[in-house]
Amino acid sequence: MSYEELALLIDGRWTQGTSGKTETVVNPSTNEALGELPLASIADLDEALEASQKGFDVWRKTPAIQRQTIMEKTARLLEERMDVIAANLTREMGKPLKEARMELGAAIDVLRWYGEEGKRVYGRVVPSRITGMRQTVKKEPIGPVIAFVAWNFPAINVMRKVAGAIGAGCSITIKASEETPGTCIAIGRAFMDAGLPAGVLNIVFGDPATISSHLCASDIPRKLSFTGSVPIGKHLQKLAADKMMRCTMELGGHAPVLVFSDADIDAAVRNCVAGKYRNAGQVCVSPTRFLVQEAVYDKFATAFRDQASKLVVGDGLAEKTDMGPLIAERRIEVMENFMADALSNGSSLLTGGERLSNSGSFFAPTVLGDVTDDALIMNEEPFGPIAPISRFSTLDEAIERANRLPFGLAAYAFTKNAKTAAALSSEIQSGMLAINSLMVASAETPFGGIKDSGYGSEGSIEGMETFLTTRFVTEIF
Amino acid sequence: MSYEELALLIDGRWTQGTSGKTETVVNPSTNEALGELPLASIADLDEALEASQKGFDVWRKTPAIQRQTIMEKTARLLEERMDVIAANLTREMGKPLKEARMELGAAIDVLRWYGEEGKRVYGRVVPSRITGMRQTVKKEPIGPVIAFVAWNFPAINVMRKVAGAIGAGCSITIKASEETPGTCIAIGRAFMDAGLPAGVLNIVFGDPATISSHLCASDIPRKLSFTGSVPIGKHLQKLAADKMMRCTMELGGHAPVLVFSDADIDAAVRNCVAGKYRNAGQVCVSPTRFLVQEAVYDKFATAFRDQASKLVVGDGLAEKTDMGPLIAERRIEVMENFMADALSNGSSLLTGGERLSNSGSFFAPTVLGDVTDDALIMNEEPFGPIAPISRFSTLDEAIERANRLPFGLAAYAFTKNAKTAAALSSEIQSGMLAINSLMVASAETPFGGIKDSGYGSEGSIEGMETFLTTRFVTEIF
Amino acid sequence: MSYEELALLIDGRWTQGTSGKTETVVNPSTNEALGELPLASIADLDEALEASQKGFDVWRKTPAIQRQTIMEKTARLLEERMDVIAANLTREMGKPLKEARMELGAAIDVLRWYGEEGKRVYGRVVPSRITGMRQTVKKEPIGPVIAFVAWNFPAINVMRKVAGAIGAGCSITIKASEETPGTCIAIGRAFMDAGLPAGVLNIVFGDPATISSHLCASDIPRKLSFTGSVPIGKHLQKLAADKMMRCTMELGGHAPVLVFSDADIDAAVRNCVAGKYRNAGQVCVSPTRFLVQEAVYDKFATAFRDQASKLVVGDGLAEKTDMGPLIAERRIEVMENFMADALSNGSSLLTGGERLSNSGSFFAPTVLGDVTDDALIMNEEPFGPIAPISRFSTLDEAIERANRLPFGLAAYAFTKNAKTAAALSSEIQSGMLAINSLMVASAETPFGGIKDSGYGSEGSIEGMETFLTTRFVTEIF
Amino acid sequence: MSYEELALLIDGRWTQGTSGKTETVVNPSTNEALGELPLASIADLDEALEASQKGFDVWRKTPAIQRQTIMEKTARLLEERMDVIAANLTREMGKPLKEARMELGAAIDVLRWYGEEGKRVYGRVVPSRITGMRQTVKKEPIGPVIAFVAWNFPAINVMRKVAGAIGAGCSITIKASEETPGTCIAIGRAFMDAGLPAGVLNIVFGDPATISSHLCASDIPRKLSFTGSVPIGKHLQKLAADKMMRCTMELGGHAPVLVFSDADIDAAVRNCVAGKYRNAGQVCVSPTRFLVQEAVYDKFATAFRDQASKLVVGDGLAEKTDMGPLIAERRIEVMENFMADALSNGSSLLTGGERLSNSGSFFAPTVLGDVTDDALIMNEEPFGPIAPISRFSTLDEAIERANRLPFGLAAYAFTKNAKTAAALSSEIQSGMLAINSLMVASAETPFGGIKDSGYGSEGSIEGMETFLTTRFVTEIF
Repeated sequence: MSYEELALLIDGRWTQGTSGKTETVVNPSTNEALGELPLASIADLDEALEASQKGFDVWRKTPAIQRQTIMEKTARLLEERMDVIAANLTREMGKPLKEARMELGAAIDVLRWYGEEGKRVYGRVVPSRITGMRQTVKKEPIGPVIAFVAWNFPAINVMRKVAGAIGAGCSITIKASEETPGTCIAIGRAFMDAGLPAGVLNIVFGDPATISSHLCASDIPRKLSFTGSVPIGKHLQKLAADKMMRCTMELGGHAPVLVFSDADIDAAVRNCVAGKYRNAGQVCVSPTRFLVQEAVYDKFATAFRDQASKLVVGDGLAEKTDMGPLIAERRIEVMENFMADALSNGSSLLTGGERLSNSGSFFAPTVLGDVTDDALIMNEEPFGPIAPISRFSTLDEAIERANRLPFGLAAYAFTKNAKTAAALSSEIQSGMLAINSLMVASAETPFGGIKDSGYGSEGSIEGMETFLTTRFVTEIF
Repeated sequence: MSYEELALLIDGRWTQGTSGKTETVVNPSTNEALGELPLASIADLDEALEASQKGFDVWRKTPAIQRQTIMEKTARLLEERMDVIAANLTREMGKPLKEARMELGAAIDVLRWYGEEGKRVYGRVVPSRITGMRQTVKKEPIGPVIAFVAWNFPAINVMRKVAGAIGAGCSITIKASEETPGTCIAIGRAFMDAGLPAGVLNIVFGDPATISSHLCASDIPRKLSFTGSVPIGKHLQKLAADKMMRCTMELGGHAPVLVFSDADIDAAVRNCVAGKYRNAGQVCVSPTRFLVQEAVYDKFATAFRDQASKLVVGDGLAEKTDMGPLIAERRIEVMENFMADALSNGSSLLTGGERLSNSGSFFAPTVLGDVTDDALIMNEEPFGPIAPISRFSTLDEAIERANRLPFGLAAYAFTKNAKTAAALSSEIQSGMLAINSLMVASAETPFGGIKDSGYGSEGSIEGMETFLTTRFVTEIF
Repeated sequence: MSYEELALLIDGRWTQGTSGKTETVVNPSTNEALGELPLASIADLDEALEASQKGFDVWRKTPAIQRQTIMEKTARLLEERMDVIAANLTREMGKPLKEARMELGAAIDVLRWYGEEGKRVYGRVVPSRITGMRQTVKKEPIGPVIAFVAWNFPAINVMRKVAGAIGAGCSITIKASEETPGTCIAIGRAFMDAGLPAGVLNIVFGDPATISSHLCASDIPRKLSFTGSVPIGKHLQKLAADKMMRCTMELGGHAPVLVFSDADIDAAVRNCVAGKYRNAGQVCVSPTRFLVQEAVYDKFATAFRDQASKLVVGDGLAEKTDMGPLIAERRIEVMENFMADALSNGSSLLTGGERLSNSGSFFAPTVLGDVTDDALIMNEEPFGPIAPISRFSTLDEAIERANRLPFGLAAYAFTKNAKTAAALSSEIQSGMLAINSLMVASAETPFGGIKDSGYGSEGSIEGMETFLTTRFVTEIF
Repeated sequence: MSYEELALLIDGRWTQGTSGKTETVVNPSTNEALGELPLASIADLDEALEASQKGFDVWRKTPAIQRQTIMEKTARLLEERMDVIAANLTREMGKPLKEARMELGAAIDVLRWYGEEGKRVYGRVVPSRITGMRQTVKKEPIGPVIAFVAWNFPAINVMRKVAGAIGAGCSITIKASEETPGTCIAIGRAFMDAGLPAGVLNIVFGDPATISSHLCASDIPRKLSFTGSVPIGKHLQKLAADKMMRCTMELGGHAPVLVFSDADIDAAVRNCVAGKYRNAGQVCVSPTRFLVQEAVYDKFATAFRDQASKLVVGDGLAEKTDMGPLIAERRIEVMENFMADALSNGSSLLTGGERLSNSGSFFAPTVLGDVTDDALIMNEEPFGPIAPISRFSTLDEAIERANRLPFGLAAYAFTKNAKTAAALSSEIQSGMLAINSLMVASAETPFGGIKDSGYGSEGSIEGMETFLTTRFVTEIF
């Protein structure tokens, strides 16, 4: 099984582009080169933009049911190609194969959701003040879309943008991460093989800053959708402002987990360990701040440490692997920095705490106890396999500390008490809140943050809305 | 009857602020000073922001029905005070008294709409993949709002922001135009007299750039809503990006009117003349480019000229006045510039074309014939009483020329043909399109543009949505 | 203050009709005659039907906003006339004046709700499979409505039908109870004074069976809405079948109250006593079967008895009255029958148990302990001031007993446990369920039953839907 | 290829039942016996009802996504088995094979629609009047369903009931026509092979009156859905009333076609001939009354006759067949009766008019000219291949005559005029109206009538609603 053939997709053609430049894609488990990724020239980008406009003109007039038919075909092709694509996803990104398969499954789910939802983009007829006047609110595809996405979910980050745009009747030009291009390309191939018209989907790679500034300076795109860090999100929003482009911003988070003393602690630990080390913690909704009520702190921390220390770390392609490497060497340094800061601040190391090998960017599943809110890891998004645990006394304190940061993406709590649950539902400042589970993302529910974590949902009805614009038409004859 | 007492509204108190600075408000019909408007200091702004946060914490938990009760009381107070407020609106802005009354009526309509709509902000329960799990999509007030609005509709520009925010459960700090502050203040007084809690509504004035940059730099506001020009809109969007504030942008337009040869020309002219000179053309959805099919061009242009030349121009307080002055002397120069350019480009002057008096900023209702697309007035938003008329041959040409500009706010057409109407409904790039009328704005229909004209609707369900954020909560016990 | 002048309302005129027959309206607190109610002849009914068709033809084309304006005027007139109408409601029906006022307040609330909701009857545009085809789902007033309502809520029973029909654009012919006609007539007068066109609302009285069979045999009505008993509901549904009339059936109930041992018992008792004796228990959603978990049974029963025994029974016009008479002497016999059966079945009498006076139909607030499920009162709708209390052990038992009867209107429970609440929400077979309160009816929430308790909601979006029909229009040009 | 093996489906088992009775299924093209259909005994029906309750208890708690997964599997099985099922459909019912395939395709479409729509049955959270109270409107499966359907669309009539019920989470017991049982059974086999739990779908056959009265007398079903004639519909509604069962009634129609003089007559004729003779006119939405404006009457009638007379009539299995036989000999007599009446009333026979063969129930494609409104065929549902054409002068006349009958299912019009189209959209009394096409039925649009044609939609959001009930839950802790 060989790695995905790397290429750009412009106006329906797979091409190496005209820049002559490439970037090497590396397997973070082995540091081996997987392939050479062609980078787009400015001319390539312009061609993609033109294609995007042309594709939009065709696609917006294609009936939703025909769009959905192509999307369903794409879904079936992805299902057929699952084994190959999942293995390549693991190769380029590092996550265990079973996680790669789950991610692809979720991406296919998202694809089907948007396909079906596109058939349900209803207009609204508003009662008129004048007899005989017809007033229609139309929901139309917003126009050509540009999208930039992060490397941590090479399939689902891409699919949320692509399927949303395509299901809504938009065209899209996407730049996936240069570290994990193969999955995006495989998705693109499935779309094209399913009969997507040329120009509706374009895939480019290159220097992120150059690409974003060039695409944002064009009159063609009407929408920018981004998944990545807070600072880049703010930068892109400014670029988009010059063309009055609408934006969706899926940025970082720092999710509190509030464990109340009345909770089922065994279930809470089981959920939290599974959630914390998924994708080596490189997840924007990863549980990252464990606030545990005093009475159950010891029980929780001990059980958490016990389970975390048993996780098998290794190459994601190995069957027994529970956790793979970090995406790249640069992330090891970030982890080491978090560790040094926390330990110097009085945190206790319960397990893990260091890199595991020099042949890949592996870092041990780590648990820190009694971490205080001034530790760096309690303030910056960890994006790695470190679980800081801290104590709290009262519901009010828990809420206040949960809301302390500028982030507002996900939050979690474990409790059996109806009044506590109601208070959290009302007071926690986050786009998503799960009580007694860590499940906040599915195709049919809105995924997105508030505050610095961005705006605009993905998935669900709300996700579709971000690719639509409202037009109001009134007629009388 | 005296002009409104000018003041800032901060944390429930009417104050002259701490800056000691004021700006003179002038009647554009007479150039008389109406009053001295206090300008907010930075400290005043900070106090308003703090009040806005405090007000939000109270207001978001106030049941929607109680919010609506206060809004209904406000509406009744405004109805009672209509005569005084309308006269002052005419004094500060210039428009005829009957237009001022209609504007206030529409503003009250918007107020009641948002009050009732606030009671209908429904959450959604999404079927779960797991038996017993409850998944709720909550629509919550987005947070404290800041708003900046233009002078051309001193009542309704303000009310769309204020009533939307307040109906949704947000607090709001608004800076109305320093040229027309009285109406905003009168609206504020009605709210406070109706029992609105302190801090929910704050009104400030001052140097626009200073105020917007200071308010946008705060962590408190979560939403910016703006009505004004395209360049300022883009600038504000960039300021807002630093705090990931969501924006609504109601910017300029340049509305084409397509008159087809099968139309009822008499009705078309009657509608167009009434629409063109309303508010002296100082309307973002004003019909500004009259494209008339060749066969009916002469009939249309002649009738238009005849009717336009009969309009009575004068002080808005005079009973017979059909059209008042421009907002200020600076706008006369803009009109003169449009005229010189058009005439030098070959347009023919059918009527009007010059200022009418030196005691106020009056400009004659003007009609230009055979204006070409390269004339300045066909490209920049006129915002004045000049009607440029041009010929077209085919439907395709009409659509192409209608869509030629970066603006996309309103568009109009007159035709009896069902196929033509369907084509326009599909192809015209504008947020609003009226066929056989010029009615595009009511409380219950979405008002807003596409392309450079901005994004985010006002009024209607969509208007309410701009003040809400989506939170997803999942629970299992 | 004199009782309402009794009359029929036919085609916009208040008339004594042509039958020459009348029925005496009696005050159940005093047995005094209040007035003579004219009964409609068959000719009168036919005139009402014709008027209803004519009224519909006018009203369905009246813009929703104009309909709402008349409804708002009606609401304000009812507010102005509150004192008089409430007193007459108490005179004819018996309930305490404060309850009469609350009922009228709720009726006005319903009126305003439907008025506003009528402005929000949106059509839907469905994406087409063919480019250029417009598919519209229209929601239109269903046609002339006929309605029959019970005496227990003379204002709100009437208003739910009338405001729903009128808000939707239907005309309606209503027969309120001959025992409580004055309130319906007062409501009708407010509508007519507010400018409702002739024929849109018609009010008739007479022999119920004759009227219903005659109205149902006509081709004119398209909808029947009924509030009353289960057997009459089934009978009317059969009559309606001959004309394929759509029905709304608000029938009887027998609401269980499940009190769990973890509940706040003081709050539960307070709520239950207030709810049980409201309107002397003559309420379709009255709590009628108190199932209390063993551990708290004694505490609950004792406190319930103590509070029930302190209630002041008397003429509803007296200020201190907590509970008035039953609607008529015939209901005393029913209560006595329930008592005899229960006591012979082993129930213990905790308080009350007998009639209180011979001058009006007063029955004491009664509490029965240890009532078994085979007691008559546990199986037939009590509609009176008797509270039977029984013990249960487990959640499963509680659910099974709650669901035991063919009724399915309201149900109540008191618990603090989130898991219990979730189970009840899933398993209790009732149209409405309140946990930790008895509040199930407001203008904006759907009121209605399942199983033998009927179908079709009143109030809320769902209530409006019952007066609408769906039409699908597809157009291509 | 052999005909479907005939059996009952009860509680997940295919059985011959216990009555020992059978009915012979006959091919209407050849009068050959196709098989012996077992008829259910009362004991079989009771077993089906019990299974239906048991199936409901399982199915209502099955997450919607799992329900949809089984429905999607069923759809794929039906696609795989298309050739066999379509041929058998043609054998038992007579329609041309291409129509049988189209019908099956549409049925699969409906199945997928309801599967996806079931995932979108959203509850609604209503803003509360009390802070902290949660008010939820739940949409739940209404309960076990019973359904009876006609023979004219053996696949889609069945699927609209079955897929709707199953997608909503209901169980269903269906009695398809004893004349066309094979298609229903084939659909049932696909569901069972896809993993539908036992009891969720039960299929029975027998004497219609006995079955309907027995099923309607049970406490188990909560919903009756019927497709058939008006008189049977009214009868079933009365039976259902005894158990307060909710009904959906898809009854007969008599669809006017209004052809205006401004229409594209060629397109109108092409559409009308194709539509009229589809399924030999045995379609409830068949165009059955052609009202043509005088100026174009001759052109329309001549072209219609020319095209109708070229249709190939024969066995549906033959490749060239355009139109098959009527369902049975009894329908030939009905056609002959229509003919005799029309001709004696002065209609002119333009083509056809008599049976074509004695070996099957074939009747010639027939066109009658100048048919008056007192002809029997203008008043009773034709359900056969006779097209009566009549003249009209004005729009008002056309509307009045279109609305003349108690039916209100489908209506059609051909015009290019926007004002005419708007008038028809407002004034025509029908559940469905197509302008410039005959397309009124798709999975995603609401199919259903008004007036005597019944109530309750199938397909679309509205179709799903008919299988749901509304429950309101309020909670405060």
